Amino acid sequence: MTASSAVKAALATQAIETPSWAYGNSGTRFKVFAREGVPRTPREKLEDAARVHELTGAAPSVALHIPWDRVDDYAALATFAKDLGLRLGTINSNVFQDDDYRLGSVCHPDPRVRRKALDHLLECVDIMDATGSRDLKLWFADGTNYPGQDDIRARQDRLAEALTAVYGRLGAEQRMLLEYKFFEPAFYTTDVPDWGTAYAHCLRLGERAQVVVDTGHHAPGTNIEFIVAVLLREGKLGGFDFNSRFYADDDLMVGAADPFQLFRIMHEVIGGGGFVPDVAFMLDQCHNIEPKIPAIIRSVMNVQEATAKALLVDREALSAAQSTGDVLGANAVLMDAYNTDVRPLLAELREERGLDPDPIAAYRRSGWAERIVAERRGGEQAGWGA
Amino acid sequence: MTASSAVKAALATQAIETPSWAYGNSGTRFKVFAREGVPRTPREKLEDAARVHELTGAAPSVALHIPWDRVDDYAALATFAKDLGLRLGTINSNVFQDDDYRLGSVCHPDPRVRRKALDHLLECVDIMDATGSRDLKLWFADGTNYPGQDDIRARQDRLAEALTAVYGRLGAEQRMLLEYKFFEPAFYTTDVPDWGTAYAHCLRLGERAQVVVDTGHHAPGTNIEFIVAVLLREGKLGGFDFNSRFYADDDLMVGAADPFQLFRIMHEVIGGGGFVPDVAFMLDQCHNIEPKIPAIIRSVMNVQEATAKALLVDREALSAAQSTGDVLGANAVLMDAYNTDVRPLLAELREERGLDPDPIAAYRRSGWAERIVAERRGGEQAGWGA
Amino acid sequence: MTASSAVKAALATQAIETPSWAYGNSGTRFKVFAREGVPRTPREKLEDAARVHELTGAAPSVALHIPWDRVDDYAALATFAKDLGLRLGTINSNVFQDDDYRLGSVCHPDPRVRRKALDHLLECVDIMDATGSRDLKLWFADGTNYPGQDDIRARQDRLAEALTAVYGRLGAEQRMLLEYKFFEPAFYTTDVPDWGTAYAHCLRLGERAQVVVDTGHHAPGTNIEFIVAVLLREGKLGGFDFNSRFYADDDLMVGAADPFQLFRIMHEVIGGGGFVPDVAFMLDQCHNIEPKIPAIIRSVMNVQEATAKALLVDREALSAAQSTGDVLGANAVLMDAYNTDVRPLLAELREERGLDPDPIAAYRRSGWAERIVAERRGGEQAGWGA
Amino acid sequence: MTASSAVKAALATQAIETPSWAYGNSGTRFKVFAREGVPRTPREKLEDAARVHELTGAAPSVALHIPWDRVDDYAALATFAKDLGLRLGTINSNVFQDDDYRLGSVCHPDPRVRRKALDHLLECVDIMDATGSRDLKLWFADGTNYPGQDDIRARQDRLAEALTAVYGRLGAEQRMLLEYKFFEPAFYTTDVPDWGTAYAHCLRLGERAQVVVDTGHHAPGTNIEFIVAVLLREGKLGGFDFNSRFYADDDLMVGAADPFQLFRIMHEVIGGGGFVPDVAFMLDQCHNIEPKIPAIIRSVMNVQEATAKALLVDREALSAAQSTGDVLGANAVLMDAYNTDVRPLLAELREERGLDPDPIAAYRRSGWAERIVAERRGGEQAGWGA
Repeated sequence: MTASSAVKAALATQAIETPSWAYGNSGTRFKVFAREGVPRTPREKLEDAARVHELTGAAPSVALHIPWDRVDDYAALATFAKDLGLRLGTINSNVFQDDDYRLGSVCHPDPRVRRKALDHLLECVDIMDATGSRDLKLWFADGTNYPGQDDIRARQDRLAEALTAVYGRLGAEQRMLLEYKFFEPAFYTTDVPDWGTAYAHCLRLGERAQVVVDTGHHAPGTNIEFIVAVLLREGKLGGFDFNSRFYADDDLMVGAADPFQLFRIMHEVIGGGGFVPDVAFMLDQCHNIEPKIPAIIRSVMNVQEATAKALLVDREALSAAQSTGDVLGANAVLMDAYNTDVRPLLAELREERGLDPDPIAAYRRSGWAERIVAERRGGEQAGWGA
Repeated sequence: MTASSAVKAALATQAIETPSWAYGNSGTRFKVFAREGVPRTPREKLEDAARVHELTGAAPSVALHIPWDRVDDYAALATFAKDLGLRLGTINSNVFQDDDYRLGSVCHPDPRVRRKALDHLLECVDIMDATGSRDLKLWFADGTNYPGQDDIRARQDRLAEALTAVYGRLGAEQRMLLEYKFFEPAFYTTDVPDWGTAYAHCLRLGERAQVVVDTGHHAPGTNIEFIVAVLLREGKLGGFDFNSRFYADDDLMVGAADPFQLFRIMHEVIGGGGFVPDVAFMLDQCHNIEPKIPAIIRSVMNVQEATAKALLVDREALSAAQSTGDVLGANAVLMDAYNTDVRPLLAELREERGLDPDPIAAYRRSGWAERIVAERRGGEQAGWGA
Repeated sequence: MTASSAVKAALATQAIETPSWAYGNSGTRFKVFAREGVPRTPREKLEDAARVHELTGAAPSVALHIPWDRVDDYAALATFAKDLGLRLGTINSNVFQDDDYRLGSVCHPDPRVRRKALDHLLECVDIMDATGSRDLKLWFADGTNYPGQDDIRARQDRLAEALTAVYGRLGAEQRMLLEYKFFEPAFYTTDVPDWGTAYAHCLRLGERAQVVVDTGHHAPGTNIEFIVAVLLREGKLGGFDFNSRFYADDDLMVGAADPFQLFRIMHEVIGGGGFVPDVAFMLDQCHNIEPKIPAIIRSVMNVQEATAKALLVDREALSAAQSTGDVLGANAVLMDAYNTDVRPLLAELREERGLDPDPIAAYRRSGWAERIVAERRGGEQAGWGA
Repeated sequence: MTASSAVKAALATQAIETPSWAYGNSGTRFKVFAREGVPRTPREKLEDAARVHELTGAAPSVALHIPWDRVDDYAALATFAKDLGLRLGTINSNVFQDDDYRLGSVCHPDPRVRRKALDHLLECVDIMDATGSRDLKLWFADGTNYPGQDDIRARQDRLAEALTAVYGRLGAEQRMLLEYKFFEPAFYTTDVPDWGTAYAHCLRLGERAQVVVDTGHHAPGTNIEFIVAVLLREGKLGGFDFNSRFYADDDLMVGAADPFQLFRIMHEVIGGGGFVPDVAFMLDQCHNIEPKIPAIIRSVMNVQEATAKALLVDREALSAAQSTGDVLGANAVLMDAYNTDVRPLLAELREERGLDPDPIAAYRRSGWAERIVAERRGGEQAGWGA
């Protein structure tokens, strides 16, 4: 009873940022499947995001991707968002979709290209100033495809130089979140391939440089919750890009491939003191074949369910079992929480907050899906690179 | 001396098929980088392929991809190829780049889509009749992204039905090469994910259904040469799609990531009696960042070098060491061949055949790269999906 | 209600075989940790197994491992088991723990060693005759560590020869279950590395040769339930060796690492008609650090829970969603079953069968753990190789 | 000529430390195969190591493993080594082969066990004082097998505490080399699983705490040379444990599985200024099936060959190609060095130093193998845990 109330109270504070690009078309290198009703403008993306927040009560902010979400007037976009009950969140830079970036951006051997990339990053900070965003998320597609193609250390030097310049430009309340990725699109070296590299750079930069963990960006078998625990212990966990994977960076709905892993991650977040606004919970998914909006609703719900289970862990009993070396007992405490069906608790929470207990069904009934198909005709659909 | 002559004689018979699509633009899901001078038509692709064969003497045929290489008159295209000193090779079907194929092609739950896909495959056999191609290569992007999305067994049944229909349509001298792939673009199940599945289907179909091994299509750590040896032992190795990978299906130049693996594969091919025309040596690469033609020349040379080393293995000494359980001795025999620098031998072979000993340098001197940049202006560059 | 009764009825028929060796000491190459009270003889292993069956009602048979469980009189051992409410199950051969097997057993280059290994396998069939066991499970540690060390195809030939001899010796009601394993203890080639190789051999041998799937024996990322579905479709799934893994063949308690995967496997078993006695559900675990008996009880319960969830899948709703291409709907049907807390249902089932609803707590109360520590002093503890 | 002289001069300075335990029996969890003539004492291990150095001229020091190499008088052992032309090298601690370490050593939940482990580590520094060893190598088998089993952060705190205590005990000329390992023997979490964790600890400890890279201790697909380059750039690369792997930590002879990777690693070592005594080149292999001494000779030769190739890279041409973005040209420069057959150059170097050009053949002729089989009878063979 009281435990359940505490869990609900904690859940009520959880905010999950959805990415503007997940509302548009995306795909694999083989095909981007088009879908009717997909947004054509940043404003239409926000309208879709507003539905997600309206139904879940848990997705109050939207991450932008520049230049995909470039507009003339970011302040006006922020007002538009506010009127929808949203706010603009993290600004994501893009230094990979220009022919100039064939061999990299800030790590490119040519100083002209590096300058161009840096200018884009600095422009992103300008945009943050206009939107009031706290976080700049940096992901670099930089790397090489062939042994010998470029000098690994020289590229690290160039990277450090660019990061230093951008960090120096940040306002006092702004942060830089540095993402790492195991591979893709580079296939031999990636310039920030693992948390260690991101951590080493952030450490030199300063307090407001933090590491972001994308759950799809690791080598096979990597224990992600260990990384989360270590980064929290070091004070360097800036946030998450949630999605799920069976093989590589599959970018499926978070919680779809390994719900137990998501639970273990949330268990470390809570145990490590990471269930605070300083750790940004973001989705970063790429919906290839399923309808966008309900997939995002589902993802938000999956994060909530994993969080609820993690909040239910009897930490006192867990500590007791751990400290006496009771392997099976300690594991059982964790599994008891995981095996609990938290859907009733979340339905209750939603009803207490005036929401429909079943957001997916409510979305279906809302007619929004039909409406956007009818209204969004003509124009160019939003998508990767559009 | 004699050994070297025998090796050269064997190498002189080796034919490596290049893929028409490797001459055009390709990329990752993040970006397709455009390159000046890229072909705009199937004929221009053949012209580029002709340069590769002219310089290496080892790439006499070109694989087509339908519909990327669709023309009105395939017989005319075959004649055009012949005039360039080439022939048209394997026909590759494409049942993944149409919005209808969002949930699969021949395994799609909707019979209408399955019929459409099957019709395309049958059209490919028509094209084979026109081009005189021996092999139809089938790769299916079919699969699912989420557990429960579709029924695994039902999809196998649908696959078997389509394969049976296509196999029945083949002429007496035509073959079906069935490709498997671990994952991508499907991220939960792939309908032909491994050699076992391809083998089981081919076994039921009959003798002219054979498995094709793409060297990039395996789980991490898979011993590819073992699969090659087993398929040869079972009489079911139809050919190779050569490329190389560090992580997933990276589609880099063959031999670039693990030249020792390529050597071991060729060692099994030769030992298993696979160095015969029945085993098709094809390239299937996706050049993202490097110039197309010299990358293909390099790939052809890499296959030749691996083959030369495999031909140099002292098989008598190897057998002797193996049969006495001399682990280090047997390994040393193999490594002796691998550690040999075969570039002089291949240069010699080229000179004996009237070719330049250094095909890359000869290509650079030829002016072809500059010429195509100058001449191929306007029109739409060939590329994935173009 | 009725659904729940049907699920309970099905669960009541499920039999999970426990392995004799899981009651003894086992470990990693770095250390085998000894534990007080561990059995010293096959009979003591059976006494422990009897406790597991007594408490779960679901573990009526025990797999033996020869020579670890070698006794003078197998019929007497069978009677001993019967008196404990158990029966002797699958006979597991061991052709890897003798200095002669350094380079393999049935695939060894030396015919003398092959003969010795074959004789052992034939002896196992003799033992099956005495114990009344239906299944002979064959796992071969055979393989090579270095390229060139031995001839891959020659080893396949030797393997086929041995399997043929053993298959010919089987009685009409006896089966051969052939296990595959990705790697370990061999590190370059493994002679039966994947389901395709096992399948190809079984196909040639005949109907009573079947493939066994050890859930820890795959490459990273392998979709095991796909293999299960395909083997069931081909009529070649003989059974499971259940355990779980995060990295390699970790041999942890089944369901401990990825409970969702275990559920998906059971979903394919049920959907593919594999929930029948012909598919053997066996545990094959290696408890390094946790107490043996409760770990096995927990494993049995984990299989039951995954099975219960799989039985709860609304297959009609699933089919409906699948056939209309409703990706999210179909996935949701599966997840609804997975997210259900089935522990109450299983507790109910146990009570209906006169068992304690909580087998772990009942075991703790039983005093058995203390009793074996007190009584089993002196003698040599059972363990790998003991 | 001059280039070749410079390469030979550099090679002549290379020292590769061999591990005492590689001369004894080792194995997998399935079997440790015994071999005739294996040493029974630390002195006999040194005698074998002396043969390796005598024949290669490149293996002047031997790493000890405590307690496997525990003796009463370490100074006497050092003198014995010196008389053999050797010196005692790195001291390796062992806090995993005691029943007390079932749940860890310095990270164990029980302070008594942690104290015992710490005492052992401190004893190792005492031994270093006696042997004159510079480096203490720490590898911890610590970790957990099941989610929830212990608290990840608490274990990091305990680890930090122990490392601090040991670091404080080091003499001014002594160093601590901290090894990381992806998994095994722990299967859920490992307390130092990756270079990032090792780096973060070493950074806090101080300058004489350095990371050691074991080439077998990474996730599938990890780019090891990238880690080497980054650690060198950070001044934190203490050394290597060389061996090779196809799957997990297979501990095969270095260079046996992926000679191209070994070359790329040496290329980064040289380019990053790591070809200095501060970077320790150690072997850490586990010879299961092949004779020990020639396997170690072969490993030393493999490191030499990879180093020679890396020294042959035309770094000026490489830089030129890299700086102009010539992907194929830069790759070709690297491959030219790799494809060179350096065996003649190494044979020449050996002859110039008064050694046999073919150390393996020289070993065979030496009669040492026969002599140790004849003489080393009785006693207990050295091995893991012996």
